[in-house]
Amino acid sequence: MKTNVGISNRHVHLTNEDYQKLFGDISLTKRNDLTQPGMYACNETVTIKGEKRSIEGVRILGPLRNYTQVEISKTDCFYLGIDAPVRNSGELDGAGKVTIIGPHGEVTKEAAIIAARHIHVDKNIRKEHNLEGIKKVSVKILGEKGGIIENVYLKDSDIAYFELHLDTDDGNAHLLNQGDEVEIILEK
Amino acid sequence: MKTNVGISNRHVHLTNEDYQKLFGDISLTKRNDLTQPGMYACNETVTIKGEKRSIEGVRILGPLRNYTQVEISKTDCFYLGIDAPVRNSGELDGAGKVTIIGPHGEVTKEAAIIAARHIHVDKNIRKEHNLEGIKKVSVKILGEKGGIIENVYLKDSDIAYFELHLDTDDGNAHLLNQGDEVEIILEK
Repeated sequence: MKTNVGISNRHVHLTNEDYQKLFGDISLTKRNDLTQPGMYACNETVTIKGEKRSIEGVRILGPLRNYTQVEISKTDCFYLGIDAPVRNSGELDGAGKVTIIGPHGEVTKEAAIIAARHIHVDKNIRKEHNLEGIKKVSVKILGEKGGIIENVYLKDSDIAYFELHLDTDDGNAHLLNQGDEVEIILEK
Repeated sequence: MKTNVGISNRHVHLTNEDYQKLFGDISLTKRNDLTQPGMYACNETVTIKGEKRSIEGVRILGPLRNYTQVEISKTDCFYLGIDAPVRNSGELDGAGKVTIIGPHGEVTKEAAIIAARHIHVDKNIRKEHNLEGIKKVSVKILGEKGGIIENVYLKDSDIAYFELHLDTDDGNAHLLNQGDEVEIILEK
């Protein structure tokens, strides 16, 4: 079965507590909706800092969550000097140490991960595509730098938009563009 | 059969004519040998410039060649503003326009490519590993972001060191390190 690709650039999710440390009493403001229902990119950005360097203008994705998480690529890890593990969202055991800097203040915590490859699903999508009970799949990518990517987790939410999310390393390595169609392969 | 991974960062090959335009009468000097016999990294570096940005400190690989070629990743393409195609070394039809800047002068030409995935072989390696007559293979990569990469060309030279060469996008997307072992799969 087929789905489409969404490529995620580096971004930050924040708790209300950390947001207030970084921005003070200013409210988070929506810039644009994302494909996943209820998710949006904010106008607000932060600087993220590792042992070696910083990157400015890293976008906050809303709404606020009950954990603070910085999602970066392996390329970013080398540049910033952060040793981040591959993790599903919210699984922050062993996450890399990162400093997040806002206009009002900064926080340093073990919150940096490389997001595991994942496909957003919900109950209806699982039913419609015979994906019930499946934890992870592989995905076939066509093109000059195509191949098969493994360990693609199915990520459940109440209402999802059926889409494969990859980081910029996976996107660029495979020459993928936003919205490209790929084929899901069930792992044996 | 197995081989090891070599990850190539962005680099430049130059003709003698272009080298002289960039560096004048100063000679190219070897910094260190590379794994391929006769190939070396030079002390000399250049700046490469696209429509959007520049990157400094891009290393020249020697010896000088009969074509000038700038090998960059897709990530570099987005950053620099260069539309480079995937090509085998020396196949510069449709290559991206790039300006190369040295201490003495600069040259602008259609020389930017994303190097196709390739494995260095020679006659003896082909014989030993039953690779005679084969143009390209796939490669199985293990690990959390593993999978199979396709369209990996066998690149012949007189005397080769048997090694898979990938750019930093492929290396980082698959969490590969220099020297990691991977499995060659013959394409059907």
